[in-house]
Amino acid sequence: MISVTLLGAGNLATRLAFALLESSGISIRQIYSRTEEHARSLAARIACCYTTDPSAIEPGSDFYIFALKDSALEEVASQVPANKGLWFHTSGSMSIDVLKPYTSRPGVLYPLQTFSKDRDVEFFEIPIFVEATNKEDLLALLRLGDKLSRNVRFLPSDKRRLLHLAAVFACNFTNHLYTLAGDILDEAELPFDVLLPLIDETAAKIHELTPYEAQTGPAVRFDENVIQKHLDLLDDPRKKDLYLRLSQSIHQDYTQP
Amino acid sequence: MISVTLLGAGNLATRLAFALLESSGISIRQIYSRTEEHARSLAARIACCYTTDPSAIEPGSDFYIFALKDSALEEVASQVPANKGLWFHTSGSMSIDVLKPYTSRPGVLYPLQTFSKDRDVEFFEIPIFVEATNKEDLLALLRLGDKLSRNVRFLPSDKRRLLHLAAVFACNFTNHLYTLAGDILDEAELPFDVLLPLIDETAAKIHELTPYEAQTGPAVRFDENVIQKHLDLLDDPRKKDLYLRLSQSIHQDYTQP
Repeated sequence: MISVTLLGAGNLATRLAFALLESSGISIRQIYSRTEEHARSLAARIACCYTTDPSAIEPGSDFYIFALKDSALEEVASQVPANKGLWFHTSGSMSIDVLKPYTSRPGVLYPLQTFSKDRDVEFFEIPIFVEATNKEDLLALLRLGDKLSRNVRFLPSDKRRLLHLAAVFACNFTNHLYTLAGDILDEAELPFDVLLPLIDETAAKIHELTPYEAQTGPAVRFDENVIQKHLDLLDDPRKKDLYLRLSQSIHQDYTQP
Repeated sequence: MISVTLLGAGNLATRLAFALLESSGISIRQIYSRTEEHARSLAARIACCYTTDPSAIEPGSDFYIFALKDSALEEVASQVPANKGLWFHTSGSMSIDVLKPYTSRPGVLYPLQTFSKDRDVEFFEIPIFVEATNKEDLLALLRLGDKLSRNVRFLPSDKRRLLHLAAVFACNFTNHLYTLAGDILDEAELPFDVLLPLIDETAAKIHELTPYEAQTGPAVRFDENVIQKHLDLLDDPRKKDLYLRLSQSIHQDYTQP
């Protein structure tokens, strides 16, 4: 049996806890969260004990999972008593180095997905990227990853940072465009759900085509007639500015040799 | 039997032709395309006759569908001999007025989707927006729409323009963010498909949450630490600029009262 201590009770920690629970041969021994309500609630859902005090984290687990906000990572790690387990964080943008002062076995296991506490995701489909400082720990993380996902691979910190940056474009910024589109629909007194088939198809298309091949719309040929009409429709300077810059950026891709 | 003449042989015209063909009680009588190869190819696929000459469009159809590029719409319409059919275009951004000089029965039927010639779409799920100049023609378009989609509604030209603009944000600009994300993955020597589960989940989430609720990432709280690290990683001034502006735009949404 693999024993795990989970630090964190946010969106990622919650989804990870359920994925660990569903894997065979893994038991979660202890949960930590700074917020007692979160710690108690998650501990109750997966039937294990909890603490709100990092210095009360017990030794003896195989893995210590730091599924915390980037900004809390170092502070919490510095308060956990030293032990022989493999400590890893789950952050896309933090280096493996952040754990090095506090453990001789630092690692990273980064699941590339957007998580919500109450939204179930197929964890097994999520690509996972792992990193360690020696071969033995790397193998341990790859084995743990294999229990959680069908798509696990090694990735060093410098490439993980780029991956996280790409994810910000593909997820966070994309979602913001959905918000801006929703604002415009409000003006037309249309419900947001009229856009869902289009949004779904836009995402589905790039399973078969590259996004470069899939690009459509007035910006590809920089159709000034349509673009000017759209700019005239946009009162909000923020949307106008983004419209123009995104259109120019698209056009640039289709005029370069 | 409803008879239809289809002008256009591009992505939308092709998908529409197949949707019409699959509906009961509709027959396509004639296809027009300026490009003989396109006209012949589509006509062969749906077994009807074709022409490359707008003045050879035959009278007697119930509907004349102008599924053409915005820029070609008026020129082609001006060359089609007058007849008693209902003429409608399928453009998101063109007013119904563009057809008025050439027919007494102008209309619009706008299917909100991104189309590719060779990619099958579930046409019946696509929202369709119709417009006409009198009640009788509107009812005729609503009835035709009902044969093609389970989601058909009336929308006047001024609101359709806004809808089309929203679609540019939700589809064209989103796809461009996928392209930029792919560029960044290239730098990390990672294949594009590692992003697909994240992209799919980002689109799936907003079936349940509003995009405002679904927003995550460093820009929400304007986490300057992560944002600065990301800006440092971006050599390309275009990506750097879009990163900053999109982050600022997100942050603006989450700080306003």
